[in-house]
Amino acid sequence: MIRHPSYASEPWCLRESALDLDVLAQSESLFALSNGHVGWRGNLDEGEPHGLPGSYLNGVYETRPLPYGEAGFGYPEVGQTVINVTNGKLVRLLVDDHPFDVRYGELRSHERRLDFRTGVLERSAEWLPESGRGIRMRSTRLVSLTQRSIAAIRYEVEPIDTAVRIVIQSELIANEALPAPEGDPRVSALLEAPLCGAEHHAGSAEASLLHRTERSGLWVAAAMAHDIDGPASTLVTAESFDDLGRVTIIATLEPGETLRLVKFVAHDWSSMRSGPAVRDQVAAALAGARLTGWVGLVDEQRDYLDHFWQGADVVVEGDAAIQQAVRFALLHVLQAGARSEGRAIAAKGLTGPGYDGHTFWDTETFVLPVLTYTEPAAVLHALRWRHSILPAALERARLLGFDGAVFPWRTITGAECSRYWPAGTAAFHIGADIADAVVRYVDATGDHEFEEGVGLELLAQTARLWRSLGHHDSEGRFRIDGVTGPDEYSAVADNNIYTNLMAQHNLRSAADAAERHPGSARRLAIDEEEMAAWRDAAAAMFVPYDQKLEVHPQADGFTDHDIWDFASTAADQYPLFLHFPYVDLYRKQVVKQADLVLAMHLRGDSFTAEQKARNFAYYERLTVRDSSLSACTQAVLAAEVGHLHLAHDYLAEAARIDFDNLEHNTRDGLHIASLAGTWIALVAGLAGMRERSGTLCFSPRLPEGITRLAVTMAVRRRRLHIEIDAGSATYRLLAGEPMEVHHEGEAVTVTVGESMVRPNRTAPRSDPPTQPIGREPRRHRPGT
Amino acid sequence: MIRHPSYASEPWCLRESALDLDVLAQSESLFALSNGHVGWRGNLDEGEPHGLPGSYLNGVYETRPLPYGEAGFGYPEVGQTVINVTNGKLVRLLVDDHPFDVRYGELRSHERRLDFRTGVLERSAEWLPESGRGIRMRSTRLVSLTQRSIAAIRYEVEPIDTAVRIVIQSELIANEALPAPEGDPRVSALLEAPLCGAEHHAGSAEASLLHRTERSGLWVAAAMAHDIDGPASTLVTAESFDDLGRVTIIATLEPGETLRLVKFVAHDWSSMRSGPAVRDQVAAALAGARLTGWVGLVDEQRDYLDHFWQGADVVVEGDAAIQQAVRFALLHVLQAGARSEGRAIAAKGLTGPGYDGHTFWDTETFVLPVLTYTEPAAVLHALRWRHSILPAALERARLLGFDGAVFPWRTITGAECSRYWPAGTAAFHIGADIADAVVRYVDATGDHEFEEGVGLELLAQTARLWRSLGHHDSEGRFRIDGVTGPDEYSAVADNNIYTNLMAQHNLRSAADAAERHPGSARRLAIDEEEMAAWRDAAAAMFVPYDQKLEVHPQADGFTDHDIWDFASTAADQYPLFLHFPYVDLYRKQVVKQADLVLAMHLRGDSFTAEQKARNFAYYERLTVRDSSLSACTQAVLAAEVGHLHLAHDYLAEAARIDFDNLEHNTRDGLHIASLAGTWIALVAGLAGMRERSGTLCFSPRLPEGITRLAVTMAVRRRRLHIEIDAGSATYRLLAGEPMEVHHEGEAVTVTVGESMVRPNRTAPRSDPPTQPIGREPRRHRPGT
Repeated sequence: MIRHPSYASEPWCLRESALDLDVLAQSESLFALSNGHVGWRGNLDEGEPHGLPGSYLNGVYETRPLPYGEAGFGYPEVGQTVINVTNGKLVRLLVDDHPFDVRYGELRSHERRLDFRTGVLERSAEWLPESGRGIRMRSTRLVSLTQRSIAAIRYEVEPIDTAVRIVIQSELIANEALPAPEGDPRVSALLEAPLCGAEHHAGSAEASLLHRTERSGLWVAAAMAHDIDGPASTLVTAESFDDLGRVTIIATLEPGETLRLVKFVAHDWSSMRSGPAVRDQVAAALAGARLTGWVGLVDEQRDYLDHFWQGADVVVEGDAAIQQAVRFALLHVLQAGARSEGRAIAAKGLTGPGYDGHTFWDTETFVLPVLTYTEPAAVLHALRWRHSILPAALERARLLGFDGAVFPWRTITGAECSRYWPAGTAAFHIGADIADAVVRYVDATGDHEFEEGVGLELLAQTARLWRSLGHHDSEGRFRIDGVTGPDEYSAVADNNIYTNLMAQHNLRSAADAAERHPGSARRLAIDEEEMAAWRDAAAAMFVPYDQKLEVHPQADGFTDHDIWDFASTAADQYPLFLHFPYVDLYRKQVVKQADLVLAMHLRGDSFTAEQKARNFAYYERLTVRDSSLSACTQAVLAAEVGHLHLAHDYLAEAARIDFDNLEHNTRDGLHIASLAGTWIALVAGLAGMRERSGTLCFSPRLPEGITRLAVTMAVRRRRLHIEIDAGSATYRLLAGEPMEVHHEGEAVTVTVGESMVRPNRTAPRSDPPTQPIGREPRRHRPGT
Repeated sequence: MIRHPSYASEPWCLRESALDLDVLAQSESLFALSNGHVGWRGNLDEGEPHGLPGSYLNGVYETRPLPYGEAGFGYPEVGQTVINVTNGKLVRLLVDDHPFDVRYGELRSHERRLDFRTGVLERSAEWLPESGRGIRMRSTRLVSLTQRSIAAIRYEVEPIDTAVRIVIQSELIANEALPAPEGDPRVSALLEAPLCGAEHHAGSAEASLLHRTERSGLWVAAAMAHDIDGPASTLVTAESFDDLGRVTIIATLEPGETLRLVKFVAHDWSSMRSGPAVRDQVAAALAGARLTGWVGLVDEQRDYLDHFWQGADVVVEGDAAIQQAVRFALLHVLQAGARSEGRAIAAKGLTGPGYDGHTFWDTETFVLPVLTYTEPAAVLHALRWRHSILPAALERARLLGFDGAVFPWRTITGAECSRYWPAGTAAFHIGADIADAVVRYVDATGDHEFEEGVGLELLAQTARLWRSLGHHDSEGRFRIDGVTGPDEYSAVADNNIYTNLMAQHNLRSAADAAERHPGSARRLAIDEEEMAAWRDAAAAMFVPYDQKLEVHPQADGFTDHDIWDFASTAADQYPLFLHFPYVDLYRKQVVKQADLVLAMHLRGDSFTAEQKARNFAYYERLTVRDSSLSACTQAVLAAEVGHLHLAHDYLAEAARIDFDNLEHNTRDGLHIASLAGTWIALVAGLAGMRERSGTLCFSPRLPEGITRLAVTMAVRRRRLHIEIDAGSATYRLLAGEPMEVHHEGEAVTVTVGESMVRPNRTAPRSDPPTQPIGREPRRHRPGT
């Protein structure tokens, strides 16, 4: 599945056996390390060549003006863009007179390996400069999951067979020159050197830099310290400037001698604390890391991940590529959220600057469902972050004239940064997506303290939005007009079914939670009248249906529209939005990404099995998957309606989006939600898992080629294990009190030590659906 | 009606009896002179104080980049903005040591008067500087309707009672500093000094300047010459610089002596001809004007206008304000289009820089209907201009993926300049509006040569758009989805009735014209199949109807939307688009401007009388008139359904939009289409005129207060006169072969010399409709 010849399918690592500079930027994203607070792209230690240098701190951004040819009331005027912070990854190497640069001399070998169990990135190379006096280098890099501000590198170099003079420059560099981004050059200029130097310091193999962003006014600090082990003659000096901290290590190495250094790097920032406070904070973190030491950091990392995999591993037998992909995905999803603590999980995590570093609905809809069952503490952080931006969301609703909260379509700090309202503000469904994540988290963890405080407020303020956004029409139906659903090839339509059903769930969940927590409800001024109004709206929620075609229209009138002329659309005209105007896309039946189909996944209870089958077939013909947020959902529904081959193909597409660079922008960062979709396609798709009022229901069936699927999940302080083969599913509890799950509608009580085996039901049979010509998913061949 | 105390209602002029600097910019628009090629705002001769200095040449613009926060396929990247060309109006006056500036000294009197019959702007003032040695000045200004490049000023000054030393500087100034426009300062900077000096010349009371625009590359030339009549000692010098040509006249005037000068100014430009050619062109025009002389120019102007008024005058008895307003409106409509020859008629004519100098659909829908019956030659020019930009419209359609022509929503040269597609490109109805203007012009003039050439091609290429934009649905109905109608508080809806009915007319008219002109049809590759497809689409055109409410929804689903909360909307929250987001406006029932009601005017044959009455009442409750393109249409329908008082109020609102500065932007230029609406409200409203297959049908009835309405019109080389009083209408032919008109459905043949008197039918009676609270039209009191 991983097409690149240098990558092999290995179950517990991503290994690159040779360096291909053509895909360097993509590999930097794949090899990115992060803990959700600090992110380091997989740039080469020596800095060059690079695809896109990148070091990120979750929440660090700069502002920029948002231009409009024609302004409109409520359009956001200030944008936010993630910035590349001080680079602490740099370890430059001079061999005699030659800078180590893989583009020169002879690179005899080069390997990189991201280990999913140890959470470190290893690299080794053997290189000969023009002089012929070569070296071997090895580096191991980690961004600590246990010490939030800390990253570290162990770097070793040794001569191959002749003595060499070695100079190592271990650096901190601020305001690195980046490849020119596309788009408005005035905007680029604004972000060219975003960090203003405030303090710098160097001494005794140490250096630190303190900067401030010009317009957003954030303090950003980085510090480094080194443990150095080399020949007795090794010399070490340190110096610092505004944008540069440098520790220089000079040694002559005889064959057999090794120069080793461990570089500890601390990063942090604050919008509230003073510059000196942030400077001291990184110094303190650095002191802690040095006390822990390299071995200690590596051990902590391994322990952390051992614990994670014990509760979250997914075993896929018969399909080595999917096996590797789901673990790769889980690691990156974890990395995106593990230590975000008070900050958002961005669409790209901290793996690149794509989408300006913004967070969208896909965090709640795709990423949090996975973390809910694998690392629920990260969900708690993410939802607390949403709660922390509630004041901005309330204010935005006021500005727009609505009640409750309008969460931003895209943001870093909570301010709306979307510059095109029909596919931004109008996508109000993000509120219901957040509510859905709250309900899922509470159901899966039983965290009622969270529900009573944060949860209820999020549910209530989003419910209030729906109540003010919709209205009862003359027939008493509750309509929600003029909104945009997940499919961005339609916009501003009435009664988008996904939106209406998610709003219905939101309204009911808010009323239920308010009932459970009367004290909190009172504090939020929720009274019986309001709860009744929520339930009324939910009960009367309008779901349009096309009686003639016997399918659900995605929104009012959708199925009356002309069908896109797929036959005349050439392969190179996808994605369509780069080749056709919205004015044409919006008026036709063509679907960018699962919309009604996503409604059938998340609100499957609102559709009959026959409706699902018919709707799925109908929308398959229209869905072009110009978004990475589609394949996994199509996999889930394909599995449900019995198209297991197709589910497998879509699973593979979701899984390989970044390995294969299917969207042509992996250079800008990984598609964290699509990676999360790998797990969703396996667990909600093949294992058929659905949440029904707090109970996990399974309907497992495997496609040909996958012989065994085993999933471990955290549920309500228990560890649940389900193992599926061709004929049956085995449910086991690895830890915790007995609990009930459903298998094909039958209640099954699982207790520790007892395996409950149940036969799989045969998939329903129907004709395989068709996709738009040329947009069929690539046929996946397991095991390749 | 004219609120300003300095203006009085006079039938043939607009007189300002005192200068009010607070409304100076507005008065500059009201007193603007133009011939459709050259436009001079009514700036004071001495240049300062000014509201907004302005001299325009139809078609002269500069480009600027159009920014988008989020780009989209097909968005125009380059905008066009009208620029202030070389100012030839300036006549500065120094009295002893004091510059004549009304802000200093004592202004004893000041009067300005725009004479609708002579087409000149007269000004007189008596002014004493601090020295106490005062002067009287008189100026008369014209922009020639007979000599297209020519404007001229006669300027006189005399001492009041003490000898004074007079210096007059008559100037040409390029790149005048303008008041800073609002919005993006980077854009303003681009347009700050748009003219690059190329040549200048001075000599013998003459000067000329030649410039080129930097990015649009247009040559712009101005030249002036003077006839001077003063005491023998009068001295004259001339000088020139890049951006300044100056003729200085110095004299000492004894009491009783007068210094008189006539300034002839020629303006022209070209995008194709060379700089020297344009320079010589203005010199030649100037020579011609000098030969004609001041008296000649004034006589020609009067003759031109006498001829115009003979064929176009409207007499309103009982309502002096409307009488004045309709003549003011007709003069400005004429000025906008008289000599446009190959160029567009912009929304503001040449009276100001509003809307960037762009032309929209309202030219065809509001301005051309008036010119069709008053100055049909101007319609020919305007439609030939549309034809001249057909290549760009065809290219735009190709880009967007449609057949036929997509005319730009706003443009100067033909390139789409709209920066917000939902209220720009999606307003495809402009194509049908152009087609409607073609049909009206051909019906009213019998100009079949035009139809065979230009007309048929416009009809066919717009019909082709409709055929590709719409589709037959499963019930065989022809639907046009995803378009924006005239009402800009809704956008991108399905089956907007105005659009569908206008498209239907367009499709049928194209087929009919192709049938009439088989040779031209062949040249345009129109075959029987295509004509049949047009007729089929027209016959099957879908017109939604709300059976429950018994009204026509403006577009699919419109009447299901929530109704705007007018009760909670404060008076200062209008216009709504400045205070509420589109995301809320679009999802509610609230109408910016007549949309379905305009369909009932232009396609009245598609509605029964009962439907019209119900629809009108329904939409009255929703229409806020945040656009100047609404009141006149509401007047027309109010009259038709029998609300004559209301029709009178709307007539007054359309008429006074600029006198009363109702839209708060008259400073940027007059609302030419709303002015045209004054005539429409009288003729289509009170006289009830409709065009039915080339026949003019009348249904006259007057509101209380208007005792007599008489309209002269040009129809098919005839001059038709209709005179209406409380009880009857009298039809007369002033010139031409007998013709048939309809009075209340009855055919009436009119011949020269015979008056056909027919009784008025009583208006139907129904309850007066209501408007959104606070948005009722101002109650008009005739005669005030």
